[in-house]
Amino acid sequence: MIKIAILGYGTIGSGVVEVLNTNSESIAKRAGDGIEVKYILDLRDFPGDPMEDKVIHDYDVIANDPEVEVVVEAMGGVEPAYTFVKRALLAGKNVTTSNKALVAKHGAELIAIAKEQNINFLFEASVGGGIPIIRPLNSSLTADEIEEITGILNGTTNYILSKMTFEGLEFADVLKDAQSRGYAEADPTADVEGYDACRKIAILTSLVCGQQVDFEDIYTEGISKITADDIKYAKAMGLVIKLLATSRKTKEGYCAMVAPFMLSQQHPLYSVNDVFNAIFVHGNVLGDAMFYGSGAGKLPTASAVVADIVDIAKHLHKNILISWSSKKMDLVDKGRSESRFFVRSAEDKEKVQSLFGEVEFVEVPQISGEVGFLTGKMSEEEFEKKADGLNVIQRIRVV
Amino acid sequence: MIKIAILGYGTIGSGVVEVLNTNSESIAKRAGDGIEVKYILDLRDFPGDPMEDKVIHDYDVIANDPEVEVVVEAMGGVEPAYTFVKRALLAGKNVTTSNKALVAKHGAELIAIAKEQNINFLFEASVGGGIPIIRPLNSSLTADEIEEITGILNGTTNYILSKMTFEGLEFADVLKDAQSRGYAEADPTADVEGYDACRKIAILTSLVCGQQVDFEDIYTEGISKITADDIKYAKAMGLVIKLLATSRKTKEGYCAMVAPFMLSQQHPLYSVNDVFNAIFVHGNVLGDAMFYGSGAGKLPTASAVVADIVDIAKHLHKNILISWSSKKMDLVDKGRSESRFFVRSAEDKEKVQSLFGEVEFVEVPQISGEVGFLTGKMSEEEFEKKADGLNVIQRIRVV
Repeated sequence: MIKIAILGYGTIGSGVVEVLNTNSESIAKRAGDGIEVKYILDLRDFPGDPMEDKVIHDYDVIANDPEVEVVVEAMGGVEPAYTFVKRALLAGKNVTTSNKALVAKHGAELIAIAKEQNINFLFEASVGGGIPIIRPLNSSLTADEIEEITGILNGTTNYILSKMTFEGLEFADVLKDAQSRGYAEADPTADVEGYDACRKIAILTSLVCGQQVDFEDIYTEGISKITADDIKYAKAMGLVIKLLATSRKTKEGYCAMVAPFMLSQQHPLYSVNDVFNAIFVHGNVLGDAMFYGSGAGKLPTASAVVADIVDIAKHLHKNILISWSSKKMDLVDKGRSESRFFVRSAEDKEKVQSLFGEVEFVEVPQISGEVGFLTGKMSEEEFEKKADGLNVIQRIRVV
Repeated sequence: MIKIAILGYGTIGSGVVEVLNTNSESIAKRAGDGIEVKYILDLRDFPGDPMEDKVIHDYDVIANDPEVEVVVEAMGGVEPAYTFVKRALLAGKNVTTSNKALVAKHGAELIAIAKEQNINFLFEASVGGGIPIIRPLNSSLTADEIEEITGILNGTTNYILSKMTFEGLEFADVLKDAQSRGYAEADPTADVEGYDACRKIAILTSLVCGQQVDFEDIYTEGISKITADDIKYAKAMGLVIKLLATSRKTKEGYCAMVAPFMLSQQHPLYSVNDVFNAIFVHGNVLGDAMFYGSGAGKLPTASAVVADIVDIAKHLHKNILISWSSKKMDLVDKGRSESRFFVRSAEDKEKVQSLFGEVEFVEVPQISGEVGFLTGKMSEEEFEKKADGLNVIQRIRVV
């Protein structure tokens, strides 16, 4: 029997218990041993809960119990998660976490400690919820140079944009609806401003390049300024607007960004709607691949955490190599990253052409008093320079 | 340096050499050691080829060379691949293969030998080409009971159906075009009649249930009888026709089938077009997931083979557990599997209703002298019984 301790008995922590109970037999078969929850650490008590007698309030009990081989960190936030996880690893206990903030900030260090201790620090659930992406990157896509990784990594914003697209609604109205359904938090900033997706693409980019990518270095733009009119323009061009978290390997280095993009129907992420997430990967020999599924939610996320527990059980006292050193990767300056731009401007067509040369104008019957157009491919820097003389209402990148 | 031997210097064998050369540095880093091709077994010589001096014609040289730690089987077909692979494993050499026929027929036995020898027999490329699916099933989706696995597993048929859909062409014309582009073989039977997809779903089902599923037991129907008129009906209903290879866990056991199906836009496989493949998975805690990419082609397939080599290098003398015993899994009789059916009949609506009760009739302006309709959900058995009195022109299952 492998004894585990769960830190945090919230949505994910209780999901882990539920998954372990629901599929106990098949999990034991795959892990090669049964999995038993010995402790649940939480500030609260859970009177009447079947796990009531496992709940403790003092982390020392877990850290000092040599029987505990796996610590499941499901508290969220950087502290005290970081302190607890580091202490567990230093005590020779394997760790799995669903905590993107922790992994983005301290992943490299925690991976290094696990390696030294010849144990494992796994974090499949920290990106893409239930979608297997960390393990495939680490152990399936090993023959490739990953040249691009682009994801719809936040379910809340994808739900909002899908709803705006299908129902023609404004951002603020859909946000309210999403909050009432529990798809958006009371303070939705981390989701709608792209901060959540930013941490996730920082993790993916670190894994792809094998070095530390600081999320603070990634240019991040949310969806709160996307309007129903923008969606109308997108529809007129046969495009959809998605919040993408993307990183590309260029000759100069890695470019990463989180921002709303317009996508054509040919793009594999085009039809990823509602709360679903997906990660598109382009490898230099593999070509295009995509991984799709539930990016959040109690059971899908817990499914990924428990898969980590099974992997840990199969690799007790054997470190699974994860290439992510603490050496910092300097990203290419955002100004050098290239794309096409869709622009709405209060100027007239002549002014636009005088600044941008030949562009494709886009007409939407219901919208007047402005001009919409699509530029050719150019760098961010070049775009900023050209758009400087223009009264810009909106600009959205196009892939 | 890890020394490998490649059996067969055709498309995939030469692809493996190309991938190893292209990404040699990153592959060595991930494998923990460099990979060197020591022998290439082929009946032919390759004068002028950079690998010319590695080419040998006698398998004994490989089997008897203790330096060779990994054998890459890229010959295809059951024999002599089976004899060679078995002999390699018994000699303590790890094996990776892209050969679905071999894996479907002898997978359980070869996995058991590898386990006894504490080495590995891996076969990521045998299903879905470059798409990581075998390894994710085996090591990522381990917290779940997989309740359904449904794939577009054959690129040739998906190309043909996509082309028929987008251009309104007949099967025979598109097949000719596919042959001229090299997307279909001179004898296209294995692809268009579903035999290729059948072997692949047999492999996936064996992995999901942990027992031997014989491909001969899987009901298999190809796409050669799909017509431009069928596509018109599908379009009228907002559906697309795809060749699906599917297996489901029901209360009575596993049901598996290969057949053309009509899919709605809500289905994640709806927008998988051209030569792309994708595998949809439903887990009892994960929910829906999908894996998408290049299901064939030299480099994508070789990418998966080389990923197996890397995994083998990381697990030298340590068996990676794969649950697939030789104990036979009896599939549920096809007659008990359930779906809706789309039917075209030469009878009139009254006759249809007298046999099927309430149905949804489908009209296509250009088609007359027949009636198209959609049944409710029923078993295959029940459908056959009801359709017995009907002059059926076509029937296609609907999911």
